[in-house]
Amino acid sequence: MTATIDTSLPTVSAHIYPRGGLDVLSRTEVARLRDASAGGMHDLLRRCALAVLTSGSASDDPRAAQELYPDFEIEVLQQDRGVRIDLRHAPAMAFVDGEIIRGVAELLFAVVRDLAYTAIELTESRDLESSDGITDAVFGLLRNARILQPSDPNLVVCWGGHSINRDEYIYTKQVGYELGLRGLDICTGCGPGAMKGPMKGATIAHAKQRKRRMRYIGITEPGIIAAESPNPIVNHLVIMPDIEKRLEAFVRVGHGIIVFPGGVGTAEEILYLLGILLREENAHVPFPLILTGPTASAPYFEQIDRFLRLTLGEAATSRYEIIVGDCAAVAKRMAAGVRKVREHRIAQKDSFFFNWSMDIPLAFQRPFVPSHEAMAALDLHHGRKPHELAADLRRAFSGIVAGNVKEDGMRRIEQFGPFEIHGDADMMQSLDALLRAFVEQRRMKISGEYKPCYRVVA
Amino acid sequence: MTATIDTSLPTVSAHIYPRGGLDVLSRTEVARLRDASAGGMHDLLRRCALAVLTSGSASDDPRAAQELYPDFEIEVLQQDRGVRIDLRHAPAMAFVDGEIIRGVAELLFAVVRDLAYTAIELTESRDLESSDGITDAVFGLLRNARILQPSDPNLVVCWGGHSINRDEYIYTKQVGYELGLRGLDICTGCGPGAMKGPMKGATIAHAKQRKRRMRYIGITEPGIIAAESPNPIVNHLVIMPDIEKRLEAFVRVGHGIIVFPGGVGTAEEILYLLGILLREENAHVPFPLILTGPTASAPYFEQIDRFLRLTLGEAATSRYEIIVGDCAAVAKRMAAGVRKVREHRIAQKDSFFFNWSMDIPLAFQRPFVPSHEAMAALDLHHGRKPHELAADLRRAFSGIVAGNVKEDGMRRIEQFGPFEIHGDADMMQSLDALLRAFVEQRRMKISGEYKPCYRVVA
Amino acid sequence: MTATIDTSLPTVSAHIYPRGGLDVLSRTEVARLRDASAGGMHDLLRRCALAVLTSGSASDDPRAAQELYPDFEIEVLQQDRGVRIDLRHAPAMAFVDGEIIRGVAELLFAVVRDLAYTAIELTESRDLESSDGITDAVFGLLRNARILQPSDPNLVVCWGGHSINRDEYIYTKQVGYELGLRGLDICTGCGPGAMKGPMKGATIAHAKQRKRRMRYIGITEPGIIAAESPNPIVNHLVIMPDIEKRLEAFVRVGHGIIVFPGGVGTAEEILYLLGILLREENAHVPFPLILTGPTASAPYFEQIDRFLRLTLGEAATSRYEIIVGDCAAVAKRMAAGVRKVREHRIAQKDSFFFNWSMDIPLAFQRPFVPSHEAMAALDLHHGRKPHELAADLRRAFSGIVAGNVKEDGMRRIEQFGPFEIHGDADMMQSLDALLRAFVEQRRMKISGEYKPCYRVVA
Amino acid sequence: MTATIDTSLPTVSAHIYPRGGLDVLSRTEVARLRDASAGGMHDLLRRCALAVLTSGSASDDPRAAQELYPDFEIEVLQQDRGVRIDLRHAPAMAFVDGEIIRGVAELLFAVVRDLAYTAIELTESRDLESSDGITDAVFGLLRNARILQPSDPNLVVCWGGHSINRDEYIYTKQVGYELGLRGLDICTGCGPGAMKGPMKGATIAHAKQRKRRMRYIGITEPGIIAAESPNPIVNHLVIMPDIEKRLEAFVRVGHGIIVFPGGVGTAEEILYLLGILLREENAHVPFPLILTGPTASAPYFEQIDRFLRLTLGEAATSRYEIIVGDCAAVAKRMAAGVRKVREHRIAQKDSFFFNWSMDIPLAFQRPFVPSHEAMAALDLHHGRKPHELAADLRRAFSGIVAGNVKEDGMRRIEQFGPFEIHGDADMMQSLDALLRAFVEQRRMKISGEYKPCYRVVA
Repeated sequence: MTATIDTSLPTVSAHIYPRGGLDVLSRTEVARLRDASAGGMHDLLRRCALAVLTSGSASDDPRAAQELYPDFEIEVLQQDRGVRIDLRHAPAMAFVDGEIIRGVAELLFAVVRDLAYTAIELTESRDLESSDGITDAVFGLLRNARILQPSDPNLVVCWGGHSINRDEYIYTKQVGYELGLRGLDICTGCGPGAMKGPMKGATIAHAKQRKRRMRYIGITEPGIIAAESPNPIVNHLVIMPDIEKRLEAFVRVGHGIIVFPGGVGTAEEILYLLGILLREENAHVPFPLILTGPTASAPYFEQIDRFLRLTLGEAATSRYEIIVGDCAAVAKRMAAGVRKVREHRIAQKDSFFFNWSMDIPLAFQRPFVPSHEAMAALDLHHGRKPHELAADLRRAFSGIVAGNVKEDGMRRIEQFGPFEIHGDADMMQSLDALLRAFVEQRRMKISGEYKPCYRVVA
Repeated sequence: MTATIDTSLPTVSAHIYPRGGLDVLSRTEVARLRDASAGGMHDLLRRCALAVLTSGSASDDPRAAQELYPDFEIEVLQQDRGVRIDLRHAPAMAFVDGEIIRGVAELLFAVVRDLAYTAIELTESRDLESSDGITDAVFGLLRNARILQPSDPNLVVCWGGHSINRDEYIYTKQVGYELGLRGLDICTGCGPGAMKGPMKGATIAHAKQRKRRMRYIGITEPGIIAAESPNPIVNHLVIMPDIEKRLEAFVRVGHGIIVFPGGVGTAEEILYLLGILLREENAHVPFPLILTGPTASAPYFEQIDRFLRLTLGEAATSRYEIIVGDCAAVAKRMAAGVRKVREHRIAQKDSFFFNWSMDIPLAFQRPFVPSHEAMAALDLHHGRKPHELAADLRRAFSGIVAGNVKEDGMRRIEQFGPFEIHGDADMMQSLDALLRAFVEQRRMKISGEYKPCYRVVA
Repeated sequence: MTATIDTSLPTVSAHIYPRGGLDVLSRTEVARLRDASAGGMHDLLRRCALAVLTSGSASDDPRAAQELYPDFEIEVLQQDRGVRIDLRHAPAMAFVDGEIIRGVAELLFAVVRDLAYTAIELTESRDLESSDGITDAVFGLLRNARILQPSDPNLVVCWGGHSINRDEYIYTKQVGYELGLRGLDICTGCGPGAMKGPMKGATIAHAKQRKRRMRYIGITEPGIIAAESPNPIVNHLVIMPDIEKRLEAFVRVGHGIIVFPGGVGTAEEILYLLGILLREENAHVPFPLILTGPTASAPYFEQIDRFLRLTLGEAATSRYEIIVGDCAAVAKRMAAGVRKVREHRIAQKDSFFFNWSMDIPLAFQRPFVPSHEAMAALDLHHGRKPHELAADLRRAFSGIVAGNVKEDGMRRIEQFGPFEIHGDADMMQSLDALLRAFVEQRRMKISGEYKPCYRVVA
Repeated sequence: MTATIDTSLPTVSAHIYPRGGLDVLSRTEVARLRDASAGGMHDLLRRCALAVLTSGSASDDPRAAQELYPDFEIEVLQQDRGVRIDLRHAPAMAFVDGEIIRGVAELLFAVVRDLAYTAIELTESRDLESSDGITDAVFGLLRNARILQPSDPNLVVCWGGHSINRDEYIYTKQVGYELGLRGLDICTGCGPGAMKGPMKGATIAHAKQRKRRMRYIGITEPGIIAAESPNPIVNHLVIMPDIEKRLEAFVRVGHGIIVFPGGVGTAEEILYLLGILLREENAHVPFPLILTGPTASAPYFEQIDRFLRLTLGEAATSRYEIIVGDCAAVAKRMAAGVRKVREHRIAQKDSFFFNWSMDIPLAFQRPFVPSHEAMAALDLHHGRKPHELAADLRRAFSGIVAGNVKEDGMRRIEQFGPFEIHGDADMMQSLDALLRAFVEQRRMKISGEYKPCYRVVA
C-alpha cells in the first residue's frame, strides 16, 4: 500500500476574455494569434504567463513557479470572432473568489500581446538587420504595447540588482518616494529588489500628490521574466524579444536613468549606456544619469567610478554623477535633468515619448555571443575611443560572467580552457578587482571559490 | 491697360500639427507618409482636403471648391520626428482668428490618415483579390480610423438622396431626432440632404438626453467627397478606397439601415443590400431595414416596393419594412431591431463592432465596370435566385446610370449605341418606369429630355 | 345622447427619482421640501414644472401650456429617506417610450431645487433688506444651482427680445456661432428668440471645436418662465425669486453682455446695466457691453444710442459699443473684452465665477412698484449724475410699460389718470419717440392705438 | 556667555490657496471663517493643522509635534473675495521643493472646513439636544465633507488599537488586502496601527484590481487627531466635534465593521456598537460585525467573547462573528454581509450612503462624564435588557479607563477614593479580568502597578 502526499498548491481553471488592445482583432489576426500560441511560441507563452500569474510571490527562483504548478496550461482560442484565453491549473493566488485579479489579467494580455507581436510582426518580412530596422522594431513593439503616449517627459528608468541588501532596498524605496513627490513615473526591469523599491516608494508619493495617471512600467524579456516575475505594482508590462532590444527600449523611452547598487548585470548596463553616451553623435543629447545608494554603499560606487575613470578616461565622468546617501538630492537632480531633456526635445522638435536623437549603432543592437574567438578579438587597450572601449569592455564583462555562471559559458571554459583576453594590464586588474568585490559583496552568485575564467595576453 | 478683378475668397496659410493617431509615428512611417502624399496620392489628398476645409459651406457643386480656391495647396512634411501639415491659401472659413477649427483639423487628419493607409497598407503585398482579403482590408481601414470600438450596438446607417426636397429633409431631421432620443448614433455618407438631416436631429436629441459620447460617422470615398463635402456635424470621417468597400463598411459597422427617398444611387444601394440579405447564408442574420419618408413620399416608396416585388419576388419584402410619415414609429422599430441584433451577436459570441457573420460574396465586393459586353452579359429573367437577380439588377442600374449621366458611360453609348440588355419585358418596363419617375421627381439630373440608353433583347 | 370630444393632448404619468444635488438630502430636508412643495409654493411649482415639461414646444403663449394640460399635477414625496417626484397627466412630449427625457428631468429637478431654496433658505431668518444680504442670497442660490464653478472667464450673457424678426433671429444664431468658435459659453433669459438663437449657434460651433463642457445657462424667474419656456438647449436652469435678483445674477456671473434688438424689456435692461456701470465705484471694473443686430436693425440702435446720449450724456457711450451687421467682429471684441475681465480679476485676486467688485446699490436691488406717487417722485432732469438719472429712467420706463400693458398698471391709469412725470421736455420727447418706434416695429404688444399713459410736468 | 543650540526641525512658510469646497465661498462666509479661525477655534485649528502637516511621521506621541514645531502658526485670511491660508514655520516634511504636497494640502483644507462647519453651523441656532437633531448634525458635517456619495455600498469600517504588535499589524494589512481585492473601501479612525494597516493593504489590492476611485476615509475628533495623526494614505479626512458624533458617523456611513485587537478604547467601541445593535428597533437592520486577529490573538477574542456572553447573554453573539487567523474568510464574510446590507437598503428604499434606519438613542449620543455620582448610578446587574446593560457597561468602562489613565479621572480618584459600582459579582470580576489582561498584553498604558480604581458594591 502506498500513500501519495499532495504537495501541489491550489489552482484555478478559467476562461479569460481580453480587453483593451486584444479586443478589436480581425478574423485573420485571431487565427494567427491562436496558431502562434499553439505553435512555436507556446513554451515561451506558458513560462511568461506563469511568471505573471505568480506576480508578487515571495520566491525569486526562476524554476520555482514551473515546479510548483506542473499542470499549468494556457491556450489561446478563437471564440467565433474574438479571442479567449483558457487557463488550466493556474495559480490560485491570481484569483479572488474565482475571478482573476484585473491587474494580473492585464499583465497576462500583455504577455500574449507582446509574444504575438514578436512572432507575427517581427518576422523575416521585416528588416531586423539594419540599425534603423531594429529601432523601428523596438518602436513598433512599444507602441503596440501602448507605452508611447504624447505626454510631458517624466519617465525615470531605475536599474540595479534584484538581490540587494535591506539597507539598499529601503534606499531605493526612498528615492522612488522622492521621485514620485516630484511627479516622476518609474520604469524598471520589473523584478524584485532595486526594480521594485522605486515603484513602491513612488506609489505612496503619487497617492500623496493625488496623481491620477501614474505609470509603473516594467520592461523585461523572455529569458528574465521567469526569474524576475513582475512585481505587483507594475501596471504596464512589455516583453521585448531579447536583451539588446530591452536595453534599447530603456534608453529610448526613459528621460533619465538612476543606477542603484547591483551585480554584474548592472555593471554591464552602465557600460552599455556609457558606450552610447560617449559617442560624439550623442555629445549634445542631454541624458541625466545618476549612480546612487545609501551611505554604506559608497565604496561600491567608488570602485565603479575608479574603474570607469581608468578605462574610459576622466571624460567619461561628465556623463554621470554619483550621489551617496541623499534621496532628495537624487530626485532634485533627476527632475532638473528631465527638465533639460524636455527643453532639448522642444528645441529639436523631437518627440517626448521616444528618444529618436540618441544614436545607437548596430554593434550595440546585435547580441554578443562570447565564444573564445569573440573574446580573443576584444581590444582592451588604452588609446581607443572611449565609446569603442566601453563596447568591448561590456562584451568582456558579458563573456566573463558567462564563463563563471552561465551553463553554456562554463562548459566552454571546461572544454577549451580560460578565455584569452588582449588588454592592458592595469585595465584587466581593475576589472578583476571589480569582479572579486562583487563576489565578496554577494552580488554575484558563485558556487565554491571564485576562479577567474580568463587570462590576460599582453 | 488691363485690370484684373480679384474674385478669390479669403484664404489662410498655416502649419498644422496632428494629434490622435497621427501623432505617434515612427521615423519610417513619417517618411512614407510624406512620400505618399507628395507622390501618387497628392491630387487626391488636395481634393479631399479642400472638401473638408469647406465643410459646411452651402454649395454642393463638386467643382466649386476647386474653382474658388485655385491656389490651395497642401503638403505633408517630416518635422524631425513627427508630421506637420502645411496649408497654403486654404479657405478662411476653416479658421477662427488664424487658428484652424479643431473639428475641421480632425477631419483633415482623417483624410491624411485614410489616404495614407490606402496608399501604404493596401498595396500589392496584401490579398485584395479574395473575399476574405477585401473584408480584412475594410476591417483594417475602419480600425485604423478608430471606428471599431467595443460598445453596445447602437449605430444606425441612414441612406438617401443628397438633394431631397424640404419636406423630406425636415422628415430626415425628425427621424434623426427620434433615433437620438433613443440613444442611437448615426452613420451616413456624410454629405448634405438625407446624409445631414438625421445627424442634425440626433444632435439636438443627444443634447436633450445628455448623451456624452455621440458618434456622427461619415463614410465616404474619394469620388464622392468632393461633391458631398462632410457636413459640420460629422465627428468621425472615414474615406474608403472605392464604392464597393464603402458599401461593405456600411453593412459591417451598421446595426440597421434606414433608407430615405433618394435617386438612382439610393436605388442601387437598396439592391446591393437586398442582394446580400436575400442570400441563404444570411437568412438567419437579423438586420433591420426600414424605408421611410414623409407622407408625401408614399408614392415613391410604393413604386420602389412594386419594383422589388416584381423583380425579386414577394419573399424579398420579408427583409424590409416601409413606414410612411411616422418618425417615432421608425425609431421604435429600429431600436427594437437593434436590440435583436444585439441578442444575436451575444448568442453567436460575435463582435458588436463588426458584422463578421454577414456573408458578402466577391461579386459584390468587386467593382462593376459597365461595358457593352458586361451589360449584355446580365441575365434579368424571372426564375433566377432572388439574390443573384438583385446583383444583376444593381449592375443594370449602375450601367444605365452611367450611360445617362457619367461622362465615361455617355461616351460609350455615343460610340457603340445603346446597351443591349437581356431581360423579361415586365421587369425591364418596371425598371424603365422607375427611372422615368426619378427624372420627373428631379431625383436624377438629366440635361435635356430623358432618352433611355439601352434596349431590351428578348 | 351626448358625445364628448377629447381635445386634450397625450399625457404620461410617472415617478421621477432625482439625482445630482437633490439626491443627498437629510430626512429633515426631504420633509421640508415635501411640505414646501405641497404648501405655498405648490402653484408656482406646478406652473414652472409645466413650462419645463413643454420645453421646446412651438408656442410662446404663457397660458397655452396651462390650458393644454389642465389635469397636470406634480407632487414631491418623501420616499423613505429620499425624494420622489410624481407627475400625473404630464405632457407626453417630455417622454420617450414612457421614460422622461434626461435633460427635461434635469430641468425639472432644477425647478424643485430653486423654488425649494427660495422657500426654505431665503426666509425671514436671512437678511434680505441690505444690499450685501441680497447679493449673498443671489450668490447662495447660484451656488446651490452649481452655476458657480472655478473655471476661466468665458460666460457671455445675451439679452434681446423673445419675438424678434427672422433676420434678427438668424443674426443672433450667427453671433452665437462666432462666440462658440472662440470657446465662449452662453447665458440668456432662456426663452425663445434672442434667448435661443445664440445658444443654437454656439452649439454648432462648440461641436466643431470639439468643446466638451459647454454651458448654456438659462436664468429666469417665476413670472417669466411660463411665458418663456426654457429652450431645449439650456443645460443649466436657474429660477431666481424676482426680476431684480435675476438681473443681478446676470451681472454677477456674466463676463460680458451682448444686447440684441428687443422691446421695452430690453431697453429697461440696458438702463439697469448702464445705471450700474456709470457709477464711480464701478469706473475701474471692466465689463464689455456690445449692442448689435443685423444691418437692417441699424436704425433701432441709432435711436437707442441717441436716447442714451441725450439722457445720460456722451460719457455714457464709453461703456458700450454698437456693432451692426458684423458677427465676427462682435465675437472678437467680446473675446478681447473677456480677456481684460480675466486680467482684472487676477490682478484684484477676485473670483472668476462671481463679480464681487461690481457695486450694485440697494436702489437697483429693490423692486420698483410704479404707483402714481412713485412716478411723480422721479426726477428726469439734465444735470443729475448719469447713474442716478439712469436709475430713474429705468423706473420711468418700467412704469410706462406697466401703464400700457400690465393689468395692474392699466387699472391704475384708468382710475387715477395718466402718470405725472417731472422731467425735461427733450428727454421726455425722446423717450416717447422710442416707445412709439417699439410699437411701430411690433416690439411692444399693444391692443388698439398707442396712447401715452403719462404727461410731462415741467 | 551663553550659547543656544537650535534643535528645531526644518520648517517652511507658505501661502496656500484652497480648492474644492473651500473655493466657492461668499464674502460673508470668508469673513466668518476668518473670524472663527482667529477666535475661539484657533488653538484647535493650530493643533489639528500640525497633526495633518506631520502626517506619516514615525512618532505617535501627541505632544511631540507641538514641541518639535513650537513656532508653527496658521492663519486664515480673506484674500479679497477668497480664502488664503498662511502657514509659518510649518514642518518641512509637508513640502517638496517649497510646494506643499497636494494630499497634505487637502487634509489641511479638510481641517479648516470641518472646524469651521462645527464653529459656524453647529451653533445654538441648531437643535443639538434631540436625537434627530444630533443625527442631522452628523449628516450635515459628513455631507459638507463630501463623504456622502450615491454609490454602491462598499465601505468597511476597521476598528482596533493604534499600538498593536507586529504580528497583528501585518494581519490588519492582509485583511485590508483581501477587502481591497473584493472592491471594498476602508474607513478607520485614521491613526497608526489597526487604523493604518487595512488601508495599506487595500491600497495594494486596489492597484492590482485597477480600481480608480478608492476611498480611504479617516474619521477623527479634535481630542484624538493630535495623538493619532492621519496616516498618509487617508484621502478623505473628517473631524467630528466629539467622540459620540464620531462613533455615530462610523455607524451611519459604514456598511459593516471589522474589529481588530485593541485596548480599552476598542472594547468601549464594541460595547457601544452592541448596545445599538441589540435594540429591538434594530433587530431587522443587517450590519456585519466581525472580530478578527491573527492566530496568536485567539485568547484575546476568547476573553472578549466570554465577557460579552456573560454580561449581555448568549443572544448578543448573534450580532457578531469571531474569525481567527483567516484573512480571506474575513473578507468573504464581510463582502457577503455588505451585499445583504445593499439588498436591505434597496428593499427599504433607504439611501446607500447614510444608514438612517439604525436607531441610535439619545443616551448613546450624549457624552458620558464619569463622576463618582454617575459611576454609582450605573446598574450592572443580570436581568436588564442587553442593550441597556451594554450602554451602562460602556460607561463603566469609560469611567474605569478615566480613573486609571486620564488626568481628570485620576485626580478624582485621588480626591474621593475609588468609584463605587453597583453590579453583580461575576460581571465585575469578568470586567476586572479583561482590564488586567489588557495591562498584561500592553494594550493599556499604565505607569507602575495596575491598581483598580473602583470597588464593587453588592
